Parts: sequence; structure tokens; C-alpha cells
Amino acid sequence: MYSASVTAPVNIATLKYWGKRDKSLNLPTNSSISVTLSQDDLRTLTTASASPSFEKDQLWLNGKLESLDTPRTQACLADLRNLRASIETPDSPKLSQMKLHIVSENNFPTAAGLASSAAGFAALVTAIAKLYQLPQDMSELSKIARKGSGSACRSLFGGFVAWEMGTSNDGEDSKAVEIAPLDHWPTLKAVILVVSDDKKDTPSTTGMQATVESSDLFAHRISQVVPRRFDQMKSAILAKDFPKFAELTMKDSNSFHAVCLDSYPPIFYLNDTSKQIIKLAEEINRDGVICAYTFDAGPNAVIYYDESNQDKVLAHLYKHFGHVPGWKTHYKAETQTTGVSRIIQTSIGYGPQQTNISLINDKGLPK
Amino acid sequence: MYSASVTAPVNIATLKYWGKRDKSLNLPTNSSISVTLSQDDLRTLTTASASPSFEKDQLWLNGKLESLDTPRTQACLADLRNLRASIETPDSPKLSQMKLHIVSENNFPTAAGLASSAAGFAALVTAIAKLYQLPQDMSELSKIARKGSGSACRSLFGGFVAWEMGTSNDGEDSKAVEIAPLDHWPTLKAVILVVSDDKKDTPSTTGMQATVESSDLFAHRISQVVPRRFDQMKSAILAKDFPKFAELTMKDSNSFHAVCLDSYPPIFYLNDTSKQIIKLAEEINRDGVICAYTFDAGPNAVIYYDESNQDKVLAHLYKHFGHVPGWKTHYKAETQTTGVSRIIQTSIGYGPQQTNISLINDKGLPK
Repeated sequence: MYSASVTAPVNIATLKYWGKRDKSLNLPTNSSISVTLSQDDLRTLTTASASPSFEKDQLWLNGKLESLDTPRTQACLADLRNLRASIETPDSPKLSQMKLHIVSENNFPTAAGLASSAAGFAALVTAIAKLYQLPQDMSELSKIARKGSGSACRSLFGGFVAWEMGTSNDGEDSKAVEIAPLDHWPTLKAVILVVSDDKKDTPSTTGMQATVESSDLFAHRISQVVPRRFDQMKSAILAKDFPKFAELTMKDSNSFHAVCLDSYPPIFYLNDTSKQIIKLAEEINRDGVICAYTFDAGPNAVIYYDESNQDKVLAHLYKHFGHVPGWKTHYKAETQTTGVSRIIQTSIGYGPQQTNISLINDKGLPK
Repeated sequence: MYSASVTAPVNIATLKYWGKRDKSLNLPTNSSISVTLSQDDLRTLTTASASPSFEKDQLWLNGKLESLDTPRTQACLADLRNLRASIETPDSPKLSQMKLHIVSENNFPTAAGLASSAAGFAALVTAIAKLYQLPQDMSELSKIARKGSGSACRSLFGGFVAWEMGTSNDGEDSKAVEIAPLDHWPTLKAVILVVSDDKKDTPSTTGMQATVESSDLFAHRISQVVPRRFDQMKSAILAKDFPKFAELTMKDSNSFHAVCLDSYPPIFYLNDTSKQIIKLAEEINRDGVICAYTFDAGPNAVIYYDESNQDKVLAHLYKHFGHVPGWKTHYKAETQTTGVSRIIQTSIGYGPQQTNISLINDKGLPK
């Protein structure tokens, strides 16, 4: 049995991916930018193993057997096997022809509504690439991860990552690239406010299609607003200009939720608690922009700040949400504002890492 | 003492006015369309009187003395006095030189958060115009009402009304015109769901300025989206095509709230209850569009429907909100959905009407 284990991080877009120009290849209508979060707090650990004795491809996710029979996962596996086959010599083991057993676990609460598919597909692709000893670099592998889940391609790098939309129809130029490594701006921190939400969200693929097809403002967002913001945000990151980075991040979150609302029928991901958090961020920023909120396709908030302002930002949030679990530092709690169920206090982090921890026992089954 | 009384209606925009190109003249960045609601349910009654014995201009609104010293009100009074002065002959009473006493009352709950300024300024202007016996038609007078409150100009007509934005800098071509009278489509009905809201809204003038200055999607809305929708909505009204009228109405409400959300900082007028009402309208429209929601700068919903579908639409709403006051018809209540405090079941109606009811006694004071 051959085996390799990898951990991969979650990433949170500061310039949002919303809209596919090709659904099966997950080609986006716009380029996007993200920050990779620390794997200490949020990561997927995946072990991939291959053996002539395995009878079929199998995946266990958080202890449960899951289907690998989705077109997206199949596309990833086929690409990886093709790359493996192309480097196999008469002497090397024929891994490309063996079935795979894959075991995957998240270190963060799966019920928290945090999109784990980015970390999941990033870990899946890099673990198999490691198992297959593929020579391709992360940008090449990001094209495969992208087919699994669009934003997964950005989880192949640490620090600050751009997903360049590309223009070709086959998606060969639609890939993730590093804007700057973690070491460029290691003091950037994040806190996630996990917002309780009873209502079922619109799944993002469905939501994106609805927006592309029905929003009258969407075309303007992708053709005019995002391209300008993409360059500005890259510059702000390279200059470590937090106020500019924060302004662009908040504006892009608003813009993304605006085109959701402009869809017909409208899509709502923000709820009254999300809005309360936005007001709170505005309060924190009253005397200068020291934090930035961003919301993905759900009500959870991610707040970015620079470590130099940690006390100011966290103390303010702690006042309202000090009673929920997850704090690493403690300030003074004043009110018990409802709507938030936990916080995840974290920082930015590295891309996928190889590890000696294996989730698979010597029988090829989950430990 | 000379006196005249007029009632004026509320209007609810189906194509929203949002954005001023001239703040002091209330010139809009886009044309808009509204439906005038019945004065049986929502109207302002205003008596205007002039007398040589009055010492200063005074206004009583819902029993309380209010200031007339706002630039907007002063602009209205000055315009009306100028028009009066131009028709005064040596024999006619010099009303333009006398002070005015104005008494105004609404027949709808003022605490309901329903914008009453449209009806208020429409009544003020038409009552004084009547007192002054001005020969100007309603479109001419609408330019004066517009200076008081932009959307007030649309309350000078019944039925279906367009406010043509105009292009001239002095606002002389920015006026309300009738698209079709009430008699064209008298079966159009409306129900207002008054949504409880603890939070203070952003005042619309402030909100509009913020959107004009900071939304990256706004310019596209006013230059591309609204002009096309203006023509389509006029056609839908003239053709009495309810599904098309409803679709455009809902899309424009969404678009307006989207550019509010795209403002920096974002402006929220919809709350979780508003969203629940939108979902309810989607349910009602599942087998064909028979109702249309629209939301102004607040969480209250106005639902339009054609009388032919009254039972279907109201029965569905009654299921959820049957326990709140205001229903004229009764269906089966199933749940007590919270967030709505009352409903106003109404229809479309006429423009301002002269009345013999006077709110001023012979001493020139409120009765």
C-alpha cells in the first residue's frame, strides 16, 4: 500500500468569486483574491492511499463514507490519474491503475456553516498529487482543484492568493497564483463570527447561476467593478495598506451581496445578525479603518485586522460576544448580543503541508 | 379669512426614485413610476387659510405646531406666493401678502413608518393653490410639490403616475404626469404589511447621497437599468399586464435595495421580516405571478395584486398575519408569524380632492 497525507487550509475571499462562465469546468466570470487562514484553527487533513488490493475508490469524510461519484470529484481523480500515468515508467508502481482509499477530517466544527469544500478539495488534490509524486507546481494543481470546487484552487497557496479567471475555454489559464506569501504580512489576523441561521441558504452554484442569468447589475460588477478592484486590492496587499485593503474588502462583500439581492428572485445571505456585525465594524472603524468584515454565501462574518490593533478590535467584539465559546484572549464583556454561536480567533497561514500523521491503517481503512 | 381644504393621497413607487442630481431643487437622477393609493385608507387632509390678521405663517400637523422654517417648505410657499402675486389684480384680495395658517391631519397611523411626506406636501401645495385660485394644472403644481419632497410630486395625480426626471438645471421639466387614470385599471389592489422595526432608518436624503457618492453599481442602475424598465413598466400598465408589471416592480425594489447595500457604508432597509414576506410572495407566485412586493426606504411591504386574485393572495397572507389588526376580509389563520404589527388593506385611488371639511375654526386656529 502506498500512502501520503496532507493538510490544506481554508481561504476567505476578499474579492469575491460569484458567477461561472463554464459550470462543468468551474470557470469563473471574474478573477478573485483571498487570504489563506491558519491551519491551526481551520484545516482539512487528508490521507490518500493506493493499493492493488483495493476494489474501488472510496472516501471517508469526518468518519462517514461519502460518495466519490460526483462529476466534479471524478474530474479531479481523472486528471490526477492521467498525470500519474504520464510519468509512470516500466519500473514504477502502476499507481494510476490502482483504486484509491481517501480519508479526510476537518479540525473545525462542520456544523458551523463554514465552507469546507475549498480546504477539502485542496487537500484531496494535493494528497493524491503527493501520493503520485507528481512534479506539477501548485498553480498547475490548482486547475485540478478548481474543477472540484472553484474556490478550492485558492487553498493551494498560503498568504495572499489570486485566482486569475483566464480566458481560454478549456480553463488551462484559470488558476491560482500567489500574490504574496504569509511572511509578507504575518500580522494580519482574522476572527470568524459564526452566526446561527435556521434558514437554508441557496447553494452557491445555484445562486451564482441565478445571479448571472437575472441580475441587471451583475454584468457591470464583473466587467467594470471587479477588474478595477482586483488591481487595487493587489496593490493594497503588496503595500500592506490595511485601510485600503479593508475598504476594498468591505466594498466587495457589499457588492457581492448586492448582486445577490438584485437577482430574481432575490438571494439573501446576510441576516439581521450579519447587519448588526456590520454596524459594529463601522463603530470600531469610527476613528480610522482598523477592521474589515466580509461575508461569503451565508450569514457568518470574517473580520480581518492587523495585530497592532488587536486589542481595540477584539475588545469591542468581546463586549458583545464575550459569552460565546472560542476566545483566545479575554476582555470585558458588557452585553450578551444574540445571533452568534461561537467565534474562531485565527490568523493567516500557509498553504498545504505534508504530514506524517496518517488517517489510514495498514488494512487501508480509516483508523 | 380665506380658506380652502384639500385631501391628498399617498403614492408607492413601483419604479423607485433613489438619487438626487440637485439636492435643493429635489431633482432626481432617474425617472420613476408610482401607483396612487386610495384616500379612504391613507390620506392627508389640509386646510390652508390666509387672513390679514395672521401674524406669521404657521403649521399644525396632527395637532402639533410644526416649523415651516425649512428651506424646502419655504421654497414651496415662495413659489405659490409668486404665482398668486402674478394673478392678483387691483380688485382681488392680496392673499400673496397675507400670512398663512395651515392645519394638516393624516387618517393613517403616523407611528406606522409610512412615508407621509408625499401626501403631506401634495396636500399643502394643492390646498394653497386652491386657496390662491391658481390656474396652473397639476403637472405645473407638481414641480412645486417636488421641491418640498421629491416623491410628493407623484401624489398630485390618481392612478398611475410617472415622474419625468427632466434634464434642465432649473428643474422646470422635472414633473409628474399621468400614465393612466384610476379608471384604466381599477381592479388593482394593495395591502401594506407594517413591519415592526426598532432600528432607526437612514433618512432617505442622506441615504440617497451616500448611494450616489459611493455605490459602484449605482451609475449602471440609473443609466442602463431604470431607463429600460421605465418604458417597460409604462407599457405593462397601459396593457394591464399584471405579471409583467409585477415582475418589473419586484425587480426594481430589489435593484433599489441592492444599490443601498452596495453603498459604503452599506444601507439596509429590509430586515429579516421583510425577507420572510418576499419568500411568502414567491410562494404565492409559485404557479404564476399574481402579486408583487415592493419596499421603500424601510422594512414595510406593499403587496400589489389584481382583484381577480384577491382570495388567493389575501388568504395566503392571512394564514401568517391573520392575528394583526387591519383586515377587511377574513380567511383562515394558521400561524402567528411575528414581525408585522398591522396591515392596511387598500386599493388604488384618485389624486387630490377638494373638500368642505375644514380643520380651521373662524379664529384661524385648529378646530
